[in-house]
Amino acid sequence: MTLCDASIDFETADFRICEDLSDVREAVEQRLEMLVGTLPGVPLNLQQAVRHALLGKSKRVRPVLLYLIAEPSPRQRLCALDLGCAVEMVHTASLILDDLPCMDDAQIRRQRPTTHIAFGQSTAILAAIGLLTRAFGIVAELDEVPEPTRVRLAALLSDAVGWDGLVAGQEIDVNGRQQLKNADQIEELNWLKTGVLFVAAAEMGAVLGGLEDKRLDAVRRFARHLGVAFQTADDLLDQDASTSEAGKDVHKDGDKATLVSLFGASQARMSCQEHLSNAESALAESGVTPAPILELMQRLFATRKAAAQ
Amino acid sequence: MTLCDASIDFETADFRICEDLSDVREAVEQRLEMLVGTLPGVPLNLQQAVRHALLGKSKRVRPVLLYLIAEPSPRQRLCALDLGCAVEMVHTASLILDDLPCMDDAQIRRQRPTTHIAFGQSTAILAAIGLLTRAFGIVAELDEVPEPTRVRLAALLSDAVGWDGLVAGQEIDVNGRQQLKNADQIEELNWLKTGVLFVAAAEMGAVLGGLEDKRLDAVRRFARHLGVAFQTADDLLDQDASTSEAGKDVHKDGDKATLVSLFGASQARMSCQEHLSNAESALAESGVTPAPILELMQRLFATRKAAAQ
Repeated sequence: MTLCDASIDFETADFRICEDLSDVREAVEQRLEMLVGTLPGVPLNLQQAVRHALLGKSKRVRPVLLYLIAEPSPRQRLCALDLGCAVEMVHTASLILDDLPCMDDAQIRRQRPTTHIAFGQSTAILAAIGLLTRAFGIVAELDEVPEPTRVRLAALLSDAVGWDGLVAGQEIDVNGRQQLKNADQIEELNWLKTGVLFVAAAEMGAVLGGLEDKRLDAVRRFARHLGVAFQTADDLLDQDASTSEAGKDVHKDGDKATLVSLFGASQARMSCQEHLSNAESALAESGVTPAPILELMQRLFATRKAAAQ
Repeated sequence: MTLCDASIDFETADFRICEDLSDVREAVEQRLEMLVGTLPGVPLNLQQAVRHALLGKSKRVRPVLLYLIAEPSPRQRLCALDLGCAVEMVHTASLILDDLPCMDDAQIRRQRPTTHIAFGQSTAILAAIGLLTRAFGIVAELDEVPEPTRVRLAALLSDAVGWDGLVAGQEIDVNGRQQLKNADQIEELNWLKTGVLFVAAAEMGAVLGGLEDKRLDAVRRFARHLGVAFQTADDLLDQDASTSEAGKDVHKDGDKATLVSLFGASQARMSCQEHLSNAESALAESGVTPAPILELMQRLFATRKAAAQ
């Protein structure tokens, strides 16, 4: 399948492309819908599970962030969207697996029953593998992007998800939390569970946008701080929000070592603020147009703050 | 990590490279061992699970086949090995998941306890994701291979594993077997469960070896027939062998629709023979040096025949 077809007329295409934050999010939503709309050769039950997991209510933070950092030319817009959708597929796959009975045993996600509750464990696991695999397929098939860039993007994604990235984070979260004793170790876990994919999304956007090394490094620092802040805010949300506010199971971290459980909500909030402030500085250094990204951060953390306070 | 470093001295390297079948298999084994030997940053439990699953006793059919079809030049040998190891990682990931309690609920695989029995379900699932993801990383990082070829290889692998490939096969196997009514539908399932990855391995070898389209098409046909024959022989093995002979749980297909259960062992054997004969014809058409591949087939099916008769 050609994902970046130059013949597509961006003015009349099904999805709207604008620079406004809400419009980017809407374009991501529509593109995700198209990418899993009709899947010939895919068993119906599996298709439904994929759609259920991927198309639930979500802020689409990672693909929107990737798009805003890429600052794509009109010709690159569809590629930036597709690359963001690939990251969202990986993120969704990780959520499906995290929610399994043998992991967090969660019932609600994205305001819906978790995928294994709705479709059974075997189909849920296969939907996750399908999404993860498709993500790499999308990267490989970004026809408008030069092959050396595609290869670099695929390596970035593999490193982020792999056994010293997201997978390591989940292993420690499920089987190694009791060994975490101090804030540094917990921040390292937050980094693995959330930061690596934030950084991968941001870095993939920067690579697509052709940023030179120094600016790329600033983008990485920005995303690392944002990711850790996001996970800390999530832990605060877990403690304070209701399931309907959070759109997923909450109060599940009670016996887990988090910054909140170890040092209290007040210190966790301070740490979160510090990371957000560092993120803003790094963003300024990166030279990426800051306004829509700052707006994204404001929206994200306003919701989280409202729920967490 | 540079996987195909031209500075490696192939004469003195840790792994032996020869054209002989056993030596290729031994080289695959050693390279797999190196690729998961030391994994800095990977939680210990996860490392052990990955090694347990990947390094169990196996014929390494897919990587050996890939290597033999690629007929690599001395400079390409390590790339051919690494690409084969990537396919073996994907295959191993699929075995870990197939064996889970919510799928086939198997106890023994590759002469060892299945990964979830030895390490728990959560670590087993994460080991599978780690292996699958690393496979795409390896393909992306084949530095000696031109980027357009790497991108093509990644797309091939994604298509083979994805929701209309291996993942679809497992979904039908676990949740859709009861709807299979005729030989064509069962052969289609055998194709998805085994054929697609055989074809991907063979095709990746052919692409690495630079085969032109007509020869590539013959390689695909060869591998398709071989894969279906292999799965049918596996069903015969399930019926007739003991667990120690097979190295995995057997007699688990009793209530599943297979060619053996629907039409009896005799017709399944005939079908298997027919596919093997078609595979040999296609191999001859492909122009790939046939001798070591025919020897591989002979060894594979001799074992299976001995167990199945």
